[in-house]
Amino acid sequence: MSLLVMKFGGTSVANVDRIKRAAKRVALEVAHGKNVIVIVSAMSGKTNELVDWVNDTSQFYDAREYDAVVSSGENVTAGLMALTLQEMDIPARSWQGWQVPVQTTSAHSSARIESISPQIINEKFAQGMKVAVVAGFQGISNEDRITTLGRGGSDTTAVAFAAAFEAERCDIYTDVDGVYTTDPRVCGKAIKLDKISYEEMLELASLGAKVLQTRSVEMAMRFKVKLRVLSSFEEPSNKAGTLVCDEEEIMESNVVSGIAYSRDEAKMTLVSVADRPGIAAAIFGPLSDAGINVDMIIQNIAEAGRTDMTFSCPIDQVSRAEMALNTAKESELINFQDLLADTNVSKISAVGIGMRSQSGVAAKMFQTLSDEGINIKVIATSEIKISVLVDRKYLELAVQSLHDAFELHEVSS
Amino acid sequence: MSLLVMKFGGTSVANVDRIKRAAKRVALEVAHGKNVIVIVSAMSGKTNELVDWVNDTSQFYDAREYDAVVSSGENVTAGLMALTLQEMDIPARSWQGWQVPVQTTSAHSSARIESISPQIINEKFAQGMKVAVVAGFQGISNEDRITTLGRGGSDTTAVAFAAAFEAERCDIYTDVDGVYTTDPRVCGKAIKLDKISYEEMLELASLGAKVLQTRSVEMAMRFKVKLRVLSSFEEPSNKAGTLVCDEEEIMESNVVSGIAYSRDEAKMTLVSVADRPGIAAAIFGPLSDAGINVDMIIQNIAEAGRTDMTFSCPIDQVSRAEMALNTAKESELINFQDLLADTNVSKISAVGIGMRSQSGVAAKMFQTLSDEGINIKVIATSEIKISVLVDRKYLELAVQSLHDAFELHEVSS
Repeated sequence: MSLLVMKFGGTSVANVDRIKRAAKRVALEVAHGKNVIVIVSAMSGKTNELVDWVNDTSQFYDAREYDAVVSSGENVTAGLMALTLQEMDIPARSWQGWQVPVQTTSAHSSARIESISPQIINEKFAQGMKVAVVAGFQGISNEDRITTLGRGGSDTTAVAFAAAFEAERCDIYTDVDGVYTTDPRVCGKAIKLDKISYEEMLELASLGAKVLQTRSVEMAMRFKVKLRVLSSFEEPSNKAGTLVCDEEEIMESNVVSGIAYSRDEAKMTLVSVADRPGIAAAIFGPLSDAGINVDMIIQNIAEAGRTDMTFSCPIDQVSRAEMALNTAKESELINFQDLLADTNVSKISAVGIGMRSQSGVAAKMFQTLSDEGINIKVIATSEIKISVLVDRKYLELAVQSLHDAFELHEVSS
Repeated sequence: MSLLVMKFGGTSVANVDRIKRAAKRVALEVAHGKNVIVIVSAMSGKTNELVDWVNDTSQFYDAREYDAVVSSGENVTAGLMALTLQEMDIPARSWQGWQVPVQTTSAHSSARIESISPQIINEKFAQGMKVAVVAGFQGISNEDRITTLGRGGSDTTAVAFAAAFEAERCDIYTDVDGVYTTDPRVCGKAIKLDKISYEEMLELASLGAKVLQTRSVEMAMRFKVKLRVLSSFEEPSNKAGTLVCDEEEIMESNVVSGIAYSRDEAKMTLVSVADRPGIAAAIFGPLSDAGINVDMIIQNIAEAGRTDMTFSCPIDQVSRAEMALNTAKESELINFQDLLADTNVSKISAVGIGMRSQSGVAAKMFQTLSDEGINIKVIATSEIKISVLVDRKYLELAVQSLHDAFELHEVSS
């Protein structure tokens, strides 16, 4: 009996009517002879309501109690989904995290799944149950207290179940119909990709394409779980959505598969830092301690024993970064002449597995931007990605021109 | 260390501000050196919202899934209450039914508590925890599925915890300030009772005074749990509320402690039934099968082998009762000439432990009603209760005149 995991996000189960629509998708798979594990999020808005209540009770809250409160939203959806499936004559029942159990670390509010016991659910499948509905986003710690996996954790729950049950695929139903070559709101020519590799998806996910949670993609890559992202608002079809899979399953990799962007970046420069061994650690240690997500880092050529150090970070972390660096300067851990913050930049990235074997991608990217008169402020590259910082006013132009240059409107996958 | 159980109903925890107010009451008891087990209901309105969703998904729902859904409201309140207490520097944590565990029967949606394990909570008390907050209304079955105890079940949870932990008292905080001699909306002279015996409370509860769930009073009586009903909206005081306790603890029992009423009753009469052995069983068997709550029963003296049989039941069960009796007649199980239904009656009851030792109570009741020109249609008595059916238009007059006649405005307890 082949097994499928289907995950429905908050907008896909926002009310009883949407739950019924989602249940019909499940019924279709059951009709095709499949057993299904359905992972559900809370009805959209519910988790925020619960979080607001917690914030109203206390400022520095006990994360264990926070988890006990916010996990309840998924429990409600799981029960309602099981009832809806039963009403369609499909043998179904719901499970909460502790009932499976989904064992996690004790890092409340951002726990990691350690193991999932398939025994009880498999027994029920053997007895004729067709659908197990599981509350996403939650588990239990060794102390038998309820944990949650952090925002977007239901994606991770879904992939973890697909791995534990060796499911043929994990379908993530959301409010977008797949992964696009870039954000359609920024570039009208953006098209949906039929397939994308885990590596590319990881770069796109962490670069701001908010389709899938990064952790879920990492886990899918590790356990080779085939992941499909698709919309619960479109008619079912075999061509629906985007398949995230191993690169071997993609016949011909695109040189560039997508253009990602991150609008609200900041570029910070430490001017005239004493260039000595250990200076990078002295700068980025305090930033890390302050919880700054440092992204790109550039060190200029040193002159007369001094250098400039530039890095990028999200715009809302600038003041915290400034505080951390000035504190380090005061305590004479580091020494710099000036600290400049440019909060008017965005990051544009070209991502593609094919870059590994094809040269000239970077050159083409720089030429394209140059032709449009866009000045590149910082460059960073990885094996399958080239990122640049540009002035924010050029964001749309940069994305559109790169989308054209790499002919993404006619990409095949 | 003395232990108190405090239960807060839905209106007492309706929002974060009310939860804070309730937490202050708990803090007061902790300041007096007590350990406290707090039992919470769902925020008022939340359970109805969940029930509505269940009803929207399916008409004949799986009670196990219903329980999984509706139990979530109490979990939210429990977490929020624990957080609020922690914010006040009181060591507290929440428990859901399965975490205690509260073991129940598998009769989903109307489960009965079988046992409560005090070990884990007592260990935490020994480690310095001051308050255990427990989600009311719920437990788990032998199959590790979530059960609920039925509406008002949080009262029963509270009493069961008080029994299992041998608490000194169980305080039920609600939106009324105690048990009254009668409904103050019907009789302006009604006064609050300081004490009432379990037996009287049971008669009052089942007669329609909606202060406490009948089951919780039965359980309190069986395990000798002192129960106090009081308002969470009044200033704390030692004289607050009504203590429900063993009659030995009430120095001088009142002949009559209260006048209860049930507005929407019906009187049904089977005219000219063949009077033979087994006829009562033949009539009331089918009514019981049809789920009719038959209350008072009167059989007239037989004449020429035939008799009239009269009984009362709630007004909304009349048509089902008629159907059951006509079906029994068609299948020749019973034989009657006519079936009359009087749907314009109410039941008035005088309740008092003192009746046992004092004669003349019934006579005084009948005389009082007669003086007011109120015709008595049916009479039923128990050891501590006299009930009569009267025309509904006389309800207020009957309650007020009996309240006067038994001098309940100056009752002592």
